[in-house]
Amino acid sequence: MIDKSCIGVALFGAGRIGNIHAANLVRHPRAQLRYVVDVHQPSAEALAGKHGAKVATVEQVLADPAIGAVVIGSSTDTHADLIMRAAAAGKAIFCEKPVDLDVQRARFCAEAVRKAGVICMIGFQRRFDPTFAALKQRLDAGEIGTPEVLIVTSRDPAPPPAAYIAHSGGVFKDMLIHDFDIFRWILGGEAVSVHATGGCPNMPDVAAAGDISHAAVTLRTRDGALCQINTSRRAAYGYDQRFEVLGSKGLLQAGNVRPTEVVVWNDNVISSDKPEAFFLERYRSAYALEIEHFFDAVVNGTSVRTTIEDGIKALELAEVATQSWREGRAIECSI
Amino acid sequence: MIDKSCIGVALFGAGRIGNIHAANLVRHPRAQLRYVVDVHQPSAEALAGKHGAKVATVEQVLADPAIGAVVIGSSTDTHADLIMRAAAAGKAIFCEKPVDLDVQRARFCAEAVRKAGVICMIGFQRRFDPTFAALKQRLDAGEIGTPEVLIVTSRDPAPPPAAYIAHSGGVFKDMLIHDFDIFRWILGGEAVSVHATGGCPNMPDVAAAGDISHAAVTLRTRDGALCQINTSRRAAYGYDQRFEVLGSKGLLQAGNVRPTEVVVWNDNVISSDKPEAFFLERYRSAYALEIEHFFDAVVNGTSVRTTIEDGIKALELAEVATQSWREGRAIECSI
Amino acid sequence: MIDKSCIGVALFGAGRIGNIHAANLVRHPRAQLRYVVDVHQPSAEALAGKHGAKVATVEQVLADPAIGAVVIGSSTDTHADLIMRAAAAGKAIFCEKPVDLDVQRARFCAEAVRKAGVICMIGFQRRFDPTFAALKQRLDAGEIGTPEVLIVTSRDPAPPPAAYIAHSGGVFKDMLIHDFDIFRWILGGEAVSVHATGGCPNMPDVAAAGDISHAAVTLRTRDGALCQINTSRRAAYGYDQRFEVLGSKGLLQAGNVRPTEVVVWNDNVISSDKPEAFFLERYRSAYALEIEHFFDAVVNGTSVRTTIEDGIKALELAEVATQSWREGRAIECSI
Amino acid sequence: MIDKSCIGVALFGAGRIGNIHAANLVRHPRAQLRYVVDVHQPSAEALAGKHGAKVATVEQVLADPAIGAVVIGSSTDTHADLIMRAAAAGKAIFCEKPVDLDVQRARFCAEAVRKAGVICMIGFQRRFDPTFAALKQRLDAGEIGTPEVLIVTSRDPAPPPAAYIAHSGGVFKDMLIHDFDIFRWILGGEAVSVHATGGCPNMPDVAAAGDISHAAVTLRTRDGALCQINTSRRAAYGYDQRFEVLGSKGLLQAGNVRPTEVVVWNDNVISSDKPEAFFLERYRSAYALEIEHFFDAVVNGTSVRTTIEDGIKALELAEVATQSWREGRAIECSI
Repeated sequence: MIDKSCIGVALFGAGRIGNIHAANLVRHPRAQLRYVVDVHQPSAEALAGKHGAKVATVEQVLADPAIGAVVIGSSTDTHADLIMRAAAAGKAIFCEKPVDLDVQRARFCAEAVRKAGVICMIGFQRRFDPTFAALKQRLDAGEIGTPEVLIVTSRDPAPPPAAYIAHSGGVFKDMLIHDFDIFRWILGGEAVSVHATGGCPNMPDVAAAGDISHAAVTLRTRDGALCQINTSRRAAYGYDQRFEVLGSKGLLQAGNVRPTEVVVWNDNVISSDKPEAFFLERYRSAYALEIEHFFDAVVNGTSVRTTIEDGIKALELAEVATQSWREGRAIECSI
Repeated sequence: MIDKSCIGVALFGAGRIGNIHAANLVRHPRAQLRYVVDVHQPSAEALAGKHGAKVATVEQVLADPAIGAVVIGSSTDTHADLIMRAAAAGKAIFCEKPVDLDVQRARFCAEAVRKAGVICMIGFQRRFDPTFAALKQRLDAGEIGTPEVLIVTSRDPAPPPAAYIAHSGGVFKDMLIHDFDIFRWILGGEAVSVHATGGCPNMPDVAAAGDISHAAVTLRTRDGALCQINTSRRAAYGYDQRFEVLGSKGLLQAGNVRPTEVVVWNDNVISSDKPEAFFLERYRSAYALEIEHFFDAVVNGTSVRTTIEDGIKALELAEVATQSWREGRAIECSI
Repeated sequence: MIDKSCIGVALFGAGRIGNIHAANLVRHPRAQLRYVVDVHQPSAEALAGKHGAKVATVEQVLADPAIGAVVIGSSTDTHADLIMRAAAAGKAIFCEKPVDLDVQRARFCAEAVRKAGVICMIGFQRRFDPTFAALKQRLDAGEIGTPEVLIVTSRDPAPPPAAYIAHSGGVFKDMLIHDFDIFRWILGGEAVSVHATGGCPNMPDVAAAGDISHAAVTLRTRDGALCQINTSRRAAYGYDQRFEVLGSKGLLQAGNVRPTEVVVWNDNVISSDKPEAFFLERYRSAYALEIEHFFDAVVNGTSVRTTIEDGIKALELAEVATQSWREGRAIECSI
Repeated sequence: MIDKSCIGVALFGAGRIGNIHAANLVRHPRAQLRYVVDVHQPSAEALAGKHGAKVATVEQVLADPAIGAVVIGSSTDTHADLIMRAAAAGKAIFCEKPVDLDVQRARFCAEAVRKAGVICMIGFQRRFDPTFAALKQRLDAGEIGTPEVLIVTSRDPAPPPAAYIAHSGGVFKDMLIHDFDIFRWILGGEAVSVHATGGCPNMPDVAAAGDISHAAVTLRTRDGALCQINTSRRAAYGYDQRFEVLGSKGLLQAGNVRPTEVVVWNDNVISSDKPEAFFLERYRSAYALEIEHFFDAVVNGTSVRTTIEDGIKALELAEVATQSWREGRAIECSI
């Protein structure tokens, strides 16, 4: 007989992000990691062993009534299928972005979730970052009046392998999907026009893969608020994740986080640490807080902050941006 | 008989910027302010009196062989005419931006200057700002490799009167012309595509004047470099003039300048000064340095850093941006 | 039969710091919290219950051969006795500072530890703070040459109750003991002269308790390096923990840590968060890292970074500083 | 016949600081530089020539009724004599610090000034620095309540030649005299105890000259406020001039000034400019503002902010500090 106060959890995907989620969820007093599923058996075994869980198949997991929730951190092409099967089995779902690279399929998923009436949270972890969340809270509290302009800087330290890029769905779905979610979250409205452009300065590999490494996107909301996003697949100085909001009464900035507060003054310059190295470090707290939020929602039956609908909206913006870039024109939309 | 080592100067315009230029040029060891011309006689007299100069008419100034240079700081609609007449009279010319609100007329001016073979410098003072100039020098020295992305933030503390806006030529020619010059100067290439959009959030007066208060512009150069400019006619916290350049090897940022380095820590926050109040304060050094540069060029016969051609290029970009905004589409161009 | 790969741990003290240590040590893969001891039974039970441990007496703990280590976070007057008894029982010891308010008694403790040959680590957690530790590492790597001057700022947000102050041993033993440890750690030498002065500006309660709220201490090492420490029992803006080291080739600064990187620009100022509220927040990572270091040492038989000898040296400096302040004179010493 | 609205000025000393003062005073609408006096004739001629003044002797200057004010920037050993002779001649006096290396002689000077009833301002230019002056104004406005602790950091980029040091009067009179003035100005009270110590880490030349290169001074005021000053003759990163005041309601910091606001992010660090190189750059505005203040006082008959009495008080503190250092003890005083 299982402990009813405790939610049995199965984790799909024993890679980098799977490990992060496992370490965070075992800390939740009401979550118990029971299964790890991964096509790569040794990875599944290693992660399961670390937390006293078992390796299992998707079928075993979904058939076990002791499993109340699934955490999906497997490869993108498995997300939609796992969401639909988990929803059908009545499990609460936490899934990494994106729902699917195909918007139609993602909508189909959302429909399945709605029908099943299960919780489905998408891993837009940035909304849980302490700095970003504090900014949002202060914005909502009216500290700078009405938001008018949002400037988002979002740069990776170095590009993934060309093979990854070729199957990534393109920079707008792979990277900017997070920034599109920030746009919707911060400005609190949907886009009525999207313009995207870009290129591959000094990155011929990305061009060869049919994608762009540097993008500049402009969005306008129904209310007339503007958003500019700039992204690149490479920043020599590291991972750059900043945004700022101009409001009618001031400006709110969310800056990078540094590993330490050491500053050195020498005969050349005054210098401080570079930003946290990459997303695993930069969003360490955010990953912990989003999993906590998910299990709190499962336990208390409350709603989640980043729904599958949010996942679809961001995907739709990525699709429109891709089209804008390909066709070299601004696109009016109603998302 | 006049002192041949000394350049007699006439100043057109005794307003705010005319006063700045007068105070700066009298410090140059080889410049001598002889005349002040202004349609508002009391202003002309006050400024002339302050520096031991005389009030005169345009005709008197241009007919006086002792006048080697003119500084034009009068209203925009007088620029083109004064430039052409001064050029015809063989005077060296320093003129505030823009050359003219009409691009054709500005080109006509440039042609007149070329034929006359006189020096004609346009007052893009930002290039002389110590912070901006140091950034450019370090960029040129290769400190961050090749420039790939430029982000420009350019916000005024408060809008001018509605009457001014109505005759300003629009936000792109009136405000962003400086930012278009920054784009050309920093990225060192011309635009092949321009997209501009904007609105008037919370500023109905600007909308009523047929203009926008907030603009978002994206430019792409032939080399694939990207530029995003964001501007607004109002920033509750003051005058905001920053830009940053992402290069293949790093990032260079040019920040705002603060009046003092005082920081206060109290029971609420840690806080520092707002940026310098407006352009007269922010670009105090830049105004002094551009005038020094102009007279150095006149004395030594060297070329000036901001030519009338630069003035026309920026104007052309403003025109294309205006069209892009009005037509709601990205425009390919060859400037 | 107990798991030999696992160290049974007993925790003395179920207060604020005891809770912190418990939460950190249960995360160590080789540490198992078995007992909680506290004179206040409900606190002991609550903490024990939270981590699946039992409430016990000192005698029970020390008699249990399954206990390999004790963590002492009970009140200061119990430290010396517990250290000596745990040492006699052959347990590895982690003890909060100070060893004792009486230097002679502390030395007696250290002698007992030496004879028993057990590990005894004192909780100078600041050495484990990521910012402070990174500074030390860079200093040791020669980044600023030889250290010459150390400036330490150490301010509490608000004073403890007068009753606490009266039995605290005075500000030098209670607060500055940490700063004396920083002095020894950073400059790597012992003091040959100590001067301390201070007062109670606007804090009559502290004066009434026979103590001072604000202190200024100067130390000089045998090598001629200087150290200035400034402390206060109250800082309106919060907990202030900074230091900087001037070396022959530069300066290293360790700054405060802020909860978030949000900056707001409004019509008055540009402002950022105050520092982390107090020691539990500021040294959150440091507390986790020192406990990890302790158990790593116990498991691997390696030495600890903050020994009982360090505890005694800092105490001796506090004693000399107290004397200097009371007698109003600089004191030469050989510690 | 001379222009009565204009003050004829004679400048003693055509060295580095003399040049600064000359350039600043010629900008004052009511000051006219008429004479330059210097034992080194070519320097006097060069500076006089630059500003249309004449080279003269002390006697000529003091005998000329057209001279209303003298600016003394000659070597320290000439100050007292020139002050007394100028006072006797009824001239307004601006003199660089110190009045004299000998306190008795300085007091004698002050007496002469009082008897003559002339204005005598001492060049404590730091009080006129925009950052320091803004801090003082905000302190006086009660922004952080009552001042309780002042921490002053004052470091030169590199030591003067050993020959200079040998005749400088020692580091306390030569360098810290400015910091003692800051102490009196900021805390607004006199010292009741002084403790000074120091050494010559890595600077054997300074030790050989009988002086110290690094000093740590602690002062306590009658009101119980504390001040710690740290100084060094060498800082690898440049000129370091900062102070901070802890008050009952907060903290005010006065930071260094940087030449530009450029920040570079590269693959190692994020870095900004070093502070302004040395006093001529750091206090450029302060030098201009103090001269303006002096001539305003002369023209309007108002009092000056830094009197000869301030000069003597700072000198007295330097003398007590020197004694404290030499004797290795704290000294009670009543200055």
